[in-house]
Amino acid sequence: VKRVLVTGATGFIGRHCLLPLAARGFKIHALTHRVSGPEDVVWHICDMLDSENVARIVAQVRPTHLLHFAWVTEHGQYWHSLENIRWVAATLALLEAFVNSGGQRAVCAGTCAEYDWSHGGYFVENATPVIPASLYGSAKSALGQLQQAFAREASFSAAWGRVFFLYGPGESPARLVSSVCRALALSQPAACTIGKQLRDFLHVKDVADAFVALLDSDVEGAINIASGQGVSVHEICRLLGDIAGRPDLIRPGTISERVGEPACIVADIARLTNEVGWRPSMNLSDGLTAMLTAWRGRVVSGQ
Amino acid sequence: VKRVLVTGATGFIGRHCLLPLAARGFKIHALTHRVSGPEDVVWHICDMLDSENVARIVAQVRPTHLLHFAWVTEHGQYWHSLENIRWVAATLALLEAFVNSGGQRAVCAGTCAEYDWSHGGYFVENATPVIPASLYGSAKSALGQLQQAFAREASFSAAWGRVFFLYGPGESPARLVSSVCRALALSQPAACTIGKQLRDFLHVKDVADAFVALLDSDVEGAINIASGQGVSVHEICRLLGDIAGRPDLIRPGTISERVGEPACIVADIARLTNEVGWRPSMNLSDGLTAMLTAWRGRVVSGQ
Repeated sequence: VKRVLVTGATGFIGRHCLLPLAARGFKIHALTHRVSGPEDVVWHICDMLDSENVARIVAQVRPTHLLHFAWVTEHGQYWHSLENIRWVAATLALLEAFVNSGGQRAVCAGTCAEYDWSHGGYFVENATPVIPASLYGSAKSALGQLQQAFAREASFSAAWGRVFFLYGPGESPARLVSSVCRALALSQPAACTIGKQLRDFLHVKDVADAFVALLDSDVEGAINIASGQGVSVHEICRLLGDIAGRPDLIRPGTISERVGEPACIVADIARLTNEVGWRPSMNLSDGLTAMLTAWRGRVVSGQ
Repeated sequence: VKRVLVTGATGFIGRHCLLPLAARGFKIHALTHRVSGPEDVVWHICDMLDSENVARIVAQVRPTHLLHFAWVTEHGQYWHSLENIRWVAATLALLEAFVNSGGQRAVCAGTCAEYDWSHGGYFVENATPVIPASLYGSAKSALGQLQQAFAREASFSAAWGRVFFLYGPGESPARLVSSVCRALALSQPAACTIGKQLRDFLHVKDVADAFVALLDSDVEGAINIASGQGVSVHEICRLLGDIAGRPDLIRPGTISERVGEPACIVADIARLTNEVGWRPSMNLSDGLTAMLTAWRGRVVSGQ
């Protein structure tokens, strides 16, 4: 029996993992601090920072697999929040409890912010220098190294999925795609940057599906979870304007660029495609169309 | 008032810090799991892995300075002990408590095992690749990165002292200098390797004094704590034989070399000498003479 414990299971990525996990025959236990969802899942309400309580639940569940997303994730806050430090300690305690109860395979969420962004270009897991510029990136990178060293010593299997840029239902309204969709749905001008910089965007359902495929494989170490395709921020805005039939509402240059924005942050996904055998299923145009439709619904219903 | 909290204050390095700290005008609080020592120190008996208790003591003491040595240190065990993971979490909790109570300057003990030993040669803090081969090295290196990122974000001052090879009173009898001293004191043959490999040895009192000088400075980041001098393992054995007047008892080659021993692990100490302004005070010959004298005393008294 494959029995997985998912943390952050009501979060942005975690919630989309439940169906693909069930489809692959996992018995699902979910750790969350919020009220549970409807799927065929055993929910454990728990503060992840309460390590004793977490250890008790892990000992009860005895998961064979661990899929760990829980982290400080408030938009705009998480880059520099001191809580990043607490989440490193909480994750180490979680991994220890997992190992102590016989766990075999752990996959945790890392980030493209672990890489040295001053390099720009295509980021390759074991070649691009890991020089994080933020506390968030430092915390994730240190934890990723610890997870691998711990796994080697304690003989469990571990992978570290580095998430790039993602979008999809449930994202903060302040994020790029949602902020533009909201303006378009309200027939208002969408303030945009010039947006020449290339980013690697993947729909959150694909991100979740890739994590589940990674968990269900035996691939170890750092793996980029991304589309492998660079798209400019402007191109995303332009696409949304076209899909909405209102290209006139897209106003590039009305927001100034952030200082020091790197020109290109795109993943090399050779490990994901060749070793895990996973490819994105949703193209950008379809994903953006779905987002716009959802925002039109929200605007109509006054949400 | 400079008020320092020392962890591992009865340990191999920590115990030798108390006098130099007092000499520099620090009011000393010591965290230890063992019975206290005699110096003018406020002792707090506490299990460092009990983070709630640690946080309570830190909030009480409100240290301006932190000197953190406590770790899993059992000779031969600590390289691969899974407890390394727990000590990372315990240290993060300690640092958080320190910051929350207004702490200003934290110095923690790192290790030369953070560096890529396959490079050999002279290790330079911010140039030699950090690729640890053991869980101990990985845990320390990840923690060192976290400490620096945490310090930048929370605006406290932090340094990370990378300890090389050390010797002195209180070391495990299984370590190089003590095992040879013991044999010589008993007039027995001292089994040695061929011992061509160069190592950087520093007397533990100098190690402790360097840490205190570092704490009392405002130098930040990783700093090698070492002599900067390479000496072969054979040369140490030969010196001990000469000091004892029994060079005939030194038997190089009666122990086989460990597989993969790097030829040279020596520190570049430019940061320590130029930025901290500290230099070793004890030469190797004097340090070894003191060790041999102490072992002769122990053997006579049957200890």
